[in-house]
Amino acid sequence: MNIAVAQSGGPTCAINASLAGVFREALRSEKIETVYGSRNGIEGMIGGNLVDLAEKLSSEDAIALLLQTPSTALGSCRRKLPSAEEDPTPYEAVLATLQRYGIGAFFYIGGNDSMDTVAKLSAWLAQKGSPVRVIGIPKTIDNDLMYTDHTPGFGSAAKYVAATVQEIIRDSSVYSLQSVTIIEIMGRHAGWLTASCSVLRVNGETAPHLIYLPESPFSVPKFLDDIRNEQKKHKAVVVAVSEGIPLSEDESGSAFSSGVTDPFGHKYLSGVGKCLEHIVRRELHCKVRSIELNVMQRCSSHLASLTDLEEAQQIGASAVRAALAGETGKMMTFCRTADRPYAVRIDSVDAGSVANKERLFPTEWINGEQNNVLSDAIDYFLPLIQGEPVIRTQNGLPVHFSV
Amino acid sequence: MNIAVAQSGGPTCAINASLAGVFREALRSEKIETVYGSRNGIEGMIGGNLVDLAEKLSSEDAIALLLQTPSTALGSCRRKLPSAEEDPTPYEAVLATLQRYGIGAFFYIGGNDSMDTVAKLSAWLAQKGSPVRVIGIPKTIDNDLMYTDHTPGFGSAAKYVAATVQEIIRDSSVYSLQSVTIIEIMGRHAGWLTASCSVLRVNGETAPHLIYLPESPFSVPKFLDDIRNEQKKHKAVVVAVSEGIPLSEDESGSAFSSGVTDPFGHKYLSGVGKCLEHIVRRELHCKVRSIELNVMQRCSSHLASLTDLEEAQQIGASAVRAALAGETGKMMTFCRTADRPYAVRIDSVDAGSVANKERLFPTEWINGEQNNVLSDAIDYFLPLIQGEPVIRTQNGLPVHFSV
Repeated sequence: MNIAVAQSGGPTCAINASLAGVFREALRSEKIETVYGSRNGIEGMIGGNLVDLAEKLSSEDAIALLLQTPSTALGSCRRKLPSAEEDPTPYEAVLATLQRYGIGAFFYIGGNDSMDTVAKLSAWLAQKGSPVRVIGIPKTIDNDLMYTDHTPGFGSAAKYVAATVQEIIRDSSVYSLQSVTIIEIMGRHAGWLTASCSVLRVNGETAPHLIYLPESPFSVPKFLDDIRNEQKKHKAVVVAVSEGIPLSEDESGSAFSSGVTDPFGHKYLSGVGKCLEHIVRRELHCKVRSIELNVMQRCSSHLASLTDLEEAQQIGASAVRAALAGETGKMMTFCRTADRPYAVRIDSVDAGSVANKERLFPTEWINGEQNNVLSDAIDYFLPLIQGEPVIRTQNGLPVHFSV
Repeated sequence: MNIAVAQSGGPTCAINASLAGVFREALRSEKIETVYGSRNGIEGMIGGNLVDLAEKLSSEDAIALLLQTPSTALGSCRRKLPSAEEDPTPYEAVLATLQRYGIGAFFYIGGNDSMDTVAKLSAWLAQKGSPVRVIGIPKTIDNDLMYTDHTPGFGSAAKYVAATVQEIIRDSSVYSLQSVTIIEIMGRHAGWLTASCSVLRVNGETAPHLIYLPESPFSVPKFLDDIRNEQKKHKAVVVAVSEGIPLSEDESGSAFSSGVTDPFGHKYLSGVGKCLEHIVRRELHCKVRSIELNVMQRCSSHLASLTDLEEAQQIGASAVRAALAGETGKMMTFCRTADRPYAVRIDSVDAGSVANKERLFPTEWINGEQNNVLSDAIDYFLPLIQGEPVIRTQNGLPVHFSV
């Protein structure tokens, strides 16, 4: 049989590694002939926009380049399938593509929206009597998928965040005057990535001195008190803050008492970091800067975690084996069996149980003051950021793969 | 005799390499006994706050860590000396420190403000009959110092910018819909760093499709036309823009017609990238994102240019040799003798001729449309970003030196 694979949702550094894992495992199997890549996620399956991956990944050299290339080589999408009862059209279009290309298994690399697609599509196909298997391969820098110890892509994002925060700490500490540096890190609902910069403690850093997550309540007066307390101990106070901390309209509104809105009626021109920067400047009258790590958090492949890239390949390969063993409607998962030495095994879970849910950062790993994380979190994070891939460069720059 | 060295101005990835260059060359000389580091630039010389560097850099291992640590290990300052006629107090304080510690030469690693200090201090000392020599060692990511082909720190910043812009290009190109990505790069008056991302062309990138520098006039209608033109050719248009492009109050004001000001009367809460983002969203009605590379441009040592780090050490060492040869009141310079193969020699120039001046990006390297740079610029940039240092890691993270 032939198989197809697609990538979905926001980019990461490891989503191409999972693609490589699927491709390589398929090459090893005598049961699989052609591996198709679907352009722009499920859209390519609906529209019949497939590429023969063997033409694109014709050498180990090409696969090596794919592994060091961030984002999604096959493109991505943000499309969620409607329920089949409401509108069977996209399902029928996917089935037509599956039949036309003789595809017996479809692999979808993505987050919880993609697992919704895996659950719905596999159920619809089974109901239609189709033998085609559908398997989800997790990915997200947010690390917020249920029933997996962690998600591919998170380890590289965490390594980037920790290494970059460490460099910002050096940068922020050079002058003899008091300063506050606020670093805004991705995570609208889950604080995993922001919390991960706590790993710097094992290398002797005291900063970031304060870490605020979406999982805890947030109050501006308490935030200012926290900074005042840290200023007694540190000249340069460094704060890590999730983009999704619950900053109330009231509190932020009072911070912007002149009523800042842009021409579109948006309350803020920028994110929470910039908002807190203005609050600190107004209330504490000290040098303050905010830094948004922005998309670099999810695409800095030059600083990827080797562990993450290897695991992403392994979980992709496992998905192929699961499909060949007859599984469908599943998402592959990591089950951690030990922290030191770190060990994981790969398992699977019903994709429907993962779809549309979020796994939050454990509140028991947050300190009593709700402004930092406990060492249990560090034990969890550390294994995920280990190892550096050897990056092939040309003209002093990493070489990227292009489909 | 003893010598002293200090670091000043904004951090870079190479300013510690120049410190290492001074230290190592001093060790080699029989004429030099103790190498003092002055804390927080000239402030340490004024206040007598010196450290014996041999205690801090007691092994090759420590020096290797210093080389991979961004920012200024000795701290920095933004202090400019008054003219000695106005106020001789700081000069007399420096002289007292020089005498107390038996210092025969002082090395100041910094930008054009620091060269002002080198010129003034060396002249005042000479006038007082002091034999102490003062030598400036250039550094700035802005690359805007006169009479030197380039400045230490710039090559690493350019390598970071190019590699990161390349990753952002991958990130911005995944969806099937039209988008504009605006990347704001440091450079208030000089466009060198923004222009440097043009090197991506030699690796086959077509993006960034538009590059705007402070050296060219800027008009919002022309900017929007440029984007419309690029959108005919590219789904995801990527724009690199210097923080210092001359966006007139009128034009940006009309973009923010509701009159956005923060509680302090500042016109913009954010930089030019965010401002242009809002203009594009309003006028072109497409997906748009702005990204500020922020301080990461100057402190990402994990992505430093090996050429930059080696040259920074060499120019530091040359400064020591120049002082021993009797020079004073000079700044060391790079003179490029060839692009391919790249070759430079080190020379010196009167620090006073560098002080308080800026070397702008050559207008003859800007295209006729004033929205991109020509290939001459790429020939200039490429040698400066070559090579990657081997980074020592611990727990998956680069190890930093701490004084």
